[in-house]
Amino acid sequence: MQLQEDSLSTTFAALADPTRRAILARLTRGPATVTELAAPFAISGPAVSKHLRVLENARLIARGREAQWRPCHLEAAPLREVADWTAQYRRFWEKSFDRLDTYLKELQAKRREPVGKEKGHARARKQR
Amino acid sequence: MQLQEDSLSTTFAALADPTRRAILARLTRGPATVTELAAPFAISGPAVSKHLRVLENARLIARGREAQWRPCHLEAAPLREVADWTAQYRRFWEKSFDRLDTYLKELQAKRREPVGKEKGHARARKQR
Repeated sequence: MQLQEDSLSTTFAALADPTRRAILARLTRGPATVTELAAPFAISGPAVSKHLRVLENARLIARGREAQWRPCHLEAAPLREVADWTAQYRRFWEKSFDRLDTYLKELQAKRREPVGKEKGHARARKQR
Repeated sequence: MQLQEDSLSTTFAALADPTRRAILARLTRGPATVTELAAPFAISGPAVSKHLRVLENARLIARGREAQWRPCHLEAAPLREVADWTAQYRRFWEKSFDRLDTYLKELQAKRREPVGKEKGHARARKQR
């Protein structure tokens, strides 16, 4: 089973960079030009343009037609695909948090035990 | 603002590959050895091991201590982080689907209009 490049992989790869995620976060406040998007980052204009091409290729942003400014805006549809994919795993992370919760409750219960039981307590811990 | 490599970027990078996502999907059915995980793929054992290292580094899987088998199991906690990050954008993809829905409803309504109105209809479209 050889799997090919797919839209979900392209989306995940585009999101695997904090600058690109910061650009998306900025665009939630409305469209912005390349200059506006570059302003908060200590990177060059061409570096920002490269990030924008990655986001555009992943259809996470789209750019206006105005030759001079070409403002970018957010296109959130691929993120819905990410949310749908991730939701399949919800029961697994909930399970792991439940286990942590049970463990912490056990720990609290043991702390409330009288001091005389301390030795048995230490032994129980060692057996884990 | 120079941003450094972070756990969310590591998670997204690990998920940006269909074979690695298929491995995670397999692990939802329970722990598995490298041989079991490699079986459905037309790739070598070492290639699977490399994918497993990426997933392990992203803390999406963990491996048992048994020297011979070292079965892998799913660790879903980083996917919760992905879900939380993605949820911030929900209103944006809902908005874009609402727009599509409105557009489709308008289109349907226009189709139901009598043929005589066609000219005015074409003009209205041009004004957009």
